[in-house]
Amino acid sequence: MTVQNIAVLGAGTVGAQVLRLINEHRDDLQARSGAQLNVSAVLVRDVNAKRDWDVDPNLLTTDAQAAIDGADIVIELIGGIEPAFTYVKRALKNGSTVITGNKALLAQHGPKLYELAAQNDTDLYYEAAVAGAVPIVYGLRESLAGDRVNRMIGIVNGTTNFILDQMATTGASYEEALKEAQDLGYAEADPTADVEGLDAAAKCAIMASLAFHSRVTMEDVEVEGITSITAEDMEEAAKQGMVIKLLAIAERRVDIEGVEGIGVQVYPALVPTTHPLATVSGAFNAVVLENESAGRLMFYGQGAGGAPTASAVLSDLVAGASHRVRGGHAPRESRYAELPILDPGSAQTRFQVRIRVREAAGVLEEVAGIFARHGVSLLAVQQNKAKDGQDVQIVLATHTTRDSDLQAVIDALGKSKSVLAIESSLRVEGDD
Amino acid sequence: MTVQNIAVLGAGTVGAQVLRLINEHRDDLQARSGAQLNVSAVLVRDVNAKRDWDVDPNLLTTDAQAAIDGADIVIELIGGIEPAFTYVKRALKNGSTVITGNKALLAQHGPKLYELAAQNDTDLYYEAAVAGAVPIVYGLRESLAGDRVNRMIGIVNGTTNFILDQMATTGASYEEALKEAQDLGYAEADPTADVEGLDAAAKCAIMASLAFHSRVTMEDVEVEGITSITAEDMEEAAKQGMVIKLLAIAERRVDIEGVEGIGVQVYPALVPTTHPLATVSGAFNAVVLENESAGRLMFYGQGAGGAPTASAVLSDLVAGASHRVRGGHAPRESRYAELPILDPGSAQTRFQVRIRVREAAGVLEEVAGIFARHGVSLLAVQQNKAKDGQDVQIVLATHTTRDSDLQAVIDALGKSKSVLAIESSLRVEGDD
Repeated sequence: MTVQNIAVLGAGTVGAQVLRLINEHRDDLQARSGAQLNVSAVLVRDVNAKRDWDVDPNLLTTDAQAAIDGADIVIELIGGIEPAFTYVKRALKNGSTVITGNKALLAQHGPKLYELAAQNDTDLYYEAAVAGAVPIVYGLRESLAGDRVNRMIGIVNGTTNFILDQMATTGASYEEALKEAQDLGYAEADPTADVEGLDAAAKCAIMASLAFHSRVTMEDVEVEGITSITAEDMEEAAKQGMVIKLLAIAERRVDIEGVEGIGVQVYPALVPTTHPLATVSGAFNAVVLENESAGRLMFYGQGAGGAPTASAVLSDLVAGASHRVRGGHAPRESRYAELPILDPGSAQTRFQVRIRVREAAGVLEEVAGIFARHGVSLLAVQQNKAKDGQDVQIVLATHTTRDSDLQAVIDALGKSKSVLAIESSLRVEGDD
Repeated sequence: MTVQNIAVLGAGTVGAQVLRLINEHRDDLQARSGAQLNVSAVLVRDVNAKRDWDVDPNLLTTDAQAAIDGADIVIELIGGIEPAFTYVKRALKNGSTVITGNKALLAQHGPKLYELAAQNDTDLYYEAAVAGAVPIVYGLRESLAGDRVNRMIGIVNGTTNFILDQMATTGASYEEALKEAQDLGYAEADPTADVEGLDAAAKCAIMASLAFHSRVTMEDVEVEGITSITAEDMEEAAKQGMVIKLLAIAERRVDIEGVEGIGVQVYPALVPTTHPLATVSGAFNAVVLENESAGRLMFYGQGAGGAPTASAVLSDLVAGASHRVRGGHAPRESRYAELPILDPGSAQTRFQVRIRVREAAGVLEEVAGIFARHGVSLLAVQQNKAKDGQDVQIVLATHTTRDSDLQAVIDALGKSKSVLAIESSLRVEGDD
């Protein structure tokens, strides 16, 4: 049986699990791939560091070039742009199969790497880079190869999902929930990448590239994080049978000038509790695909963690090894469609705007008039006494409207003397 | 560009949609597969029958052999065992790629066909045979190739899901809900295959074969349908925060003698409303996979219908055509594990038993004693006055117990003079 040498670059939580699974499931993996999988090198920073998992010390090395050049299949689990980018390029130029879980690298240099793989007649796999164990890359690359994806909505960041869950269930403020997430190890000391939506944006770019056969990078994604979500937003949402989720959205749409293209956005939105995404809690991820023929499909599973992510790496390993010994390739990363990225202003959603106004006759009419003048049609208006005194709170729900029109309304509300504060403006997921 | 000739055998709802999609998405499919897809024949019963969809009349034929022999890729959408079995064998012997949506054929002759495909160095695809648009075959064949599936729970029959939904939401009896399903065209005039669980059993066998790399046929599946579910069962379930769903279950387990094998069963069960499967309603299907490393994954989507099923056929068509022109194969149907099928008596679940007893001192103790004597531990016992008079209803919920032990309890209850009737005995999905 053909032997395939495997170099594992980076041996953190995921790497350790990958090595364990290759070892424990040796016979299964051999039967499935048709290859004998032999770990030939494990690239680490320090060969003498203490490890709480088993590894043959002779495999450990700090010599990246030797590790890469001696392997048929390179599993890159270092993360970040450099030196991962250099290593992956070297492996692909060698004609080796590359498996990576590095979303930052793909969101920035994906198209270059896919091209390099094709030039060298080899394959690049990255199921582990998006949504952990959830097989969304397979879903988009293979299961929907005969269909047309119209829209993709995902919950793809576990940290923010945990924080929003905590806020919803305990009434905690954003700061308190973040603190708890940090104490439990679910959020990093510097939580920026998660809470500002950058991690979700990177995944969104990778998935949108696949779904729409176009070049989408992280810079194309319009991003809004969860840092301005308040306990009051959560309370209001619950009253209306909704939850707030950080959504990564990519959709095919037509802009004001009639140009067909793609919109890619990450933002917190109100989601009705009856929506399949509303029940996705804690560290779970889910991606809903709305397709021309297949209709609505959902993929759901654990979005992070050593073992779930390692499971995604192993599925790529079986596919990659199998293609090496039996011929064939992973589906090519075709960018044939090359749809343009559209301005986020052309996106159409429903909104819910909460403002605080002075209690005075005619204010409701004035506010409703501002919406009407900008062509934003209202679905419902509710007026509440503010908790702390004389002011009045107005919650306005719109019909589907363009982002740019709603932005104009917000600007006009800001200039109105009757409006004391714009407390929140959130999109609402789902049709009118 | 290489031309691939395609014969479509059978042109019902799915076939018509497949032909439409091949036509409408010609450029997309070509870009993705690397082949020019040319429909060379459409096998029908009567070339002169009226059709409400477009087809080049020159493609229509009743000559199956000529259609098959002239094609590189054969799409079988006839259904049933014969003549589909003969046609598929002929195509595979020709070395053609076969795509089928025929679950009956696969559940009965799958292993023979996989072997024939391998002998002739070609591929057999069947994503459309299980759960419509839900990509569970891809999920099991590819996404979980590096993992170990421990358990699979699916809602894979839309007709029974619709009937149970109707009963739950309207309080209708089984007969009333079935009648409505028939009136709406969701159930056939002879609904046996659906309501007795045979359709779910066929899909269960196909999925279990894939999940456990073993030979599982429809005869191996222990089947119980939904015909004995009553409006009262539904009402009782709702009171306890549960719904009743027809589940297809396949699991790896160890029997009483310590033999590791597979259990495959289809039965209606109580499912807590918090379980991801509880919200799967109407024509939607979902399959939950519990995996060693990936943990719990769920695939959800439309389980039937022309367009969703055609989407599954088209994804197989892209993969099949791509492998023909670019080399390689679909993952082989490996039966290397060959785990034995275990007796259903060795299955372990929780149960809920509802009985009617004479109101008399000591009956509750007597009944509880019967459970205890058979080693079945009780989680909860509730006694209700029966609606219609003096009798008393007792609802007993057990801890996880063996099917065989519970069956012994039911037999003993049947012999007890205090027990007037065993109204229902349902399994409960979920851990203790």
